[in-house]
Amino acid sequence: MQSNREIVLESTPQGVPAPGNFTLRTAPMPEPRTGEVLCRTRFLSLDPYMRIQIAGRHLSGTVTPGDVMKGETVSEVVHSNVAAFSPGRLVRCMGGWQAYSVHRTEDLYGVADNIDPPSYALSVLGMTGLTAYAGMIWQARVRGGECVVIPAVTGGVGSIAAQLCAARGARVIGIAGSGEKCGYAVESLGAADCIDRRSEDVEARLGELCPEGIDVYFDLVGGPTLDAACRHLAHYGRVVLCGLMAEYNHTDRSPGPDPGLLIGRRAIVSGLVVYDYESRRDEFIRKCLPLLAQGKLKQREDITVGLENAPAAFHRLMSGQNFGKAIVRV
Amino acid sequence: MQSNREIVLESTPQGVPAPGNFTLRTAPMPEPRTGEVLCRTRFLSLDPYMRIQIAGRHLSGTVTPGDVMKGETVSEVVHSNVAAFSPGRLVRCMGGWQAYSVHRTEDLYGVADNIDPPSYALSVLGMTGLTAYAGMIWQARVRGGECVVIPAVTGGVGSIAAQLCAARGARVIGIAGSGEKCGYAVESLGAADCIDRRSEDVEARLGELCPEGIDVYFDLVGGPTLDAACRHLAHYGRVVLCGLMAEYNHTDRSPGPDPGLLIGRRAIVSGLVVYDYESRRDEFIRKCLPLLAQGKLKQREDITVGLENAPAAFHRLMSGQNFGKAIVRV
Repeated sequence: MQSNREIVLESTPQGVPAPGNFTLRTAPMPEPRTGEVLCRTRFLSLDPYMRIQIAGRHLSGTVTPGDVMKGETVSEVVHSNVAAFSPGRLVRCMGGWQAYSVHRTEDLYGVADNIDPPSYALSVLGMTGLTAYAGMIWQARVRGGECVVIPAVTGGVGSIAAQLCAARGARVIGIAGSGEKCGYAVESLGAADCIDRRSEDVEARLGELCPEGIDVYFDLVGGPTLDAACRHLAHYGRVVLCGLMAEYNHTDRSPGPDPGLLIGRRAIVSGLVVYDYESRRDEFIRKCLPLLAQGKLKQREDITVGLENAPAAFHRLMSGQNFGKAIVRV
Repeated sequence: MQSNREIVLESTPQGVPAPGNFTLRTAPMPEPRTGEVLCRTRFLSLDPYMRIQIAGRHLSGTVTPGDVMKGETVSEVVHSNVAAFSPGRLVRCMGGWQAYSVHRTEDLYGVADNIDPPSYALSVLGMTGLTAYAGMIWQARVRGGECVVIPAVTGGVGSIAAQLCAARGARVIGIAGSGEKCGYAVESLGAADCIDRRSEDVEARLGELCPEGIDVYFDLVGGPTLDAACRHLAHYGRVVLCGLMAEYNHTDRSPGPDPGLLIGRRAIVSGLVVYDYESRRDEFIRKCLPLLAQGKLKQREDITVGLENAPAAFHRLMSGQNFGKAIVRV
């Protein structure tokens, strides 16, 4: 009988997780019980929040040494006693970093045929895209003509956010970690300009590029970039707090921006948790499919082949070396 | 000819401003030019923002040594060539810390007869009340049944905020600087409970008194109390940033609460500047007059008699020794 392959957290990383923090191991094939479905992983989404699960601080749960790494997957139904999910059907589920997984039907979501390629169910039409859409459209309500600053602009969430805002007529200023990424943001994501955070003074450049202030800052990174953006907020500027990429590899936490500054700017700062928007996922997909068809929304995926290479890909993600949404094809 | 008396900033204080930082001096009586009005100060409002004007950080302007202290007053028109403001008329203006002041008519606002006593134009029906109303009703949209935490609850803004929230059916938890003030908050301001910040562990008590979390925190003080309140925020809790009393006497600024915490709580943090609500002042007064008539809104004023005693009263205010809205009767 076939066996399963799974990637287990071996040790809690200090700083950026390295491949040595993980082990690939063989395990017995999981067996579905009544009402359960056996799935084979096709695509695994790698996301920064996984670093927080390892650190024991994420609201979706923790991963401790010895546990299989968690993660969202697009999987194929292999064995099922349930009419709704026949073999061959593609589903979205929390398959984790493994080749096979077993789920109860209430934890499976069919991947519609119009999500093509199916990995888009993990990227532009998945949690990543939903995060960008919820943050920029529903929460910040970005309008045409506004100045929107997006760090990690070529990453999973950032790249979708930039395109959604540009499609609304907003002026998008990206921040990215290389000249190549900055070029991509301007040429392909609709950014009006992009700041190379490794070679430029981010705060000075924000001042130059946003002379009338930042209307919306999508905080995907935290740290000093959040501070710098707040110092350049326009009156009534909105800050959507979504991620803290700059801090995920550290155990100490950065404080937030000076409240006195937020008062003077009449800023509105709100925290975004994408799970809260799950009930609006279909609406989000309906809004985005035409944009994809029109070419206003493109998805660059940073695809790594082979489950065994997931740890190296995660290391690249957590050190900012990915270029596009990080996905493992299993 | 009569002369003016004015209080001048003598030196920039370190820490809490002391009477020695100010000088009372005699000056020539100001003379109104064409279109100007001479006013005699009746009541002077003392407010924490004045500490920031001295420090050069307030958006309404700065006061440097040698300048007459600024401040809002209820004054009586003494001499006027303008039909709209005849002698004897009570007006609200930025008269400053002095016995007489001259104003252009566009800087004068008549005090309506139904504002009685007229000092209420500086307290419950003035900027102080408007700040509380704008923060709690318009900005935080406090609803019945919500848990609202208000620090400096017996102070000018806090005491009005507490009563407005209680009148809406919210459960108000106050924070104050003495057992006597706490007793007053519960007995007279409608607070369900009140934490004595000098003798109790504020954070532990917030946890006990708000077991389902804080729905609205009205931040009038900044500093560690803001942090503590954020750690006890309910999901979707709102924080209205309005003042930083705990920091006004310091030159260093405290950072804001941990963004990761704000994300997890889906918090909404917004800065409040009362000047933005000036256009709605009449609406606010219309809403509050019935509450005053019904006894649902009471104003305790901490009145000091004599302009020469303003510096000592300001020292008391900035060290938290005032009890009620600080006003000087000139």
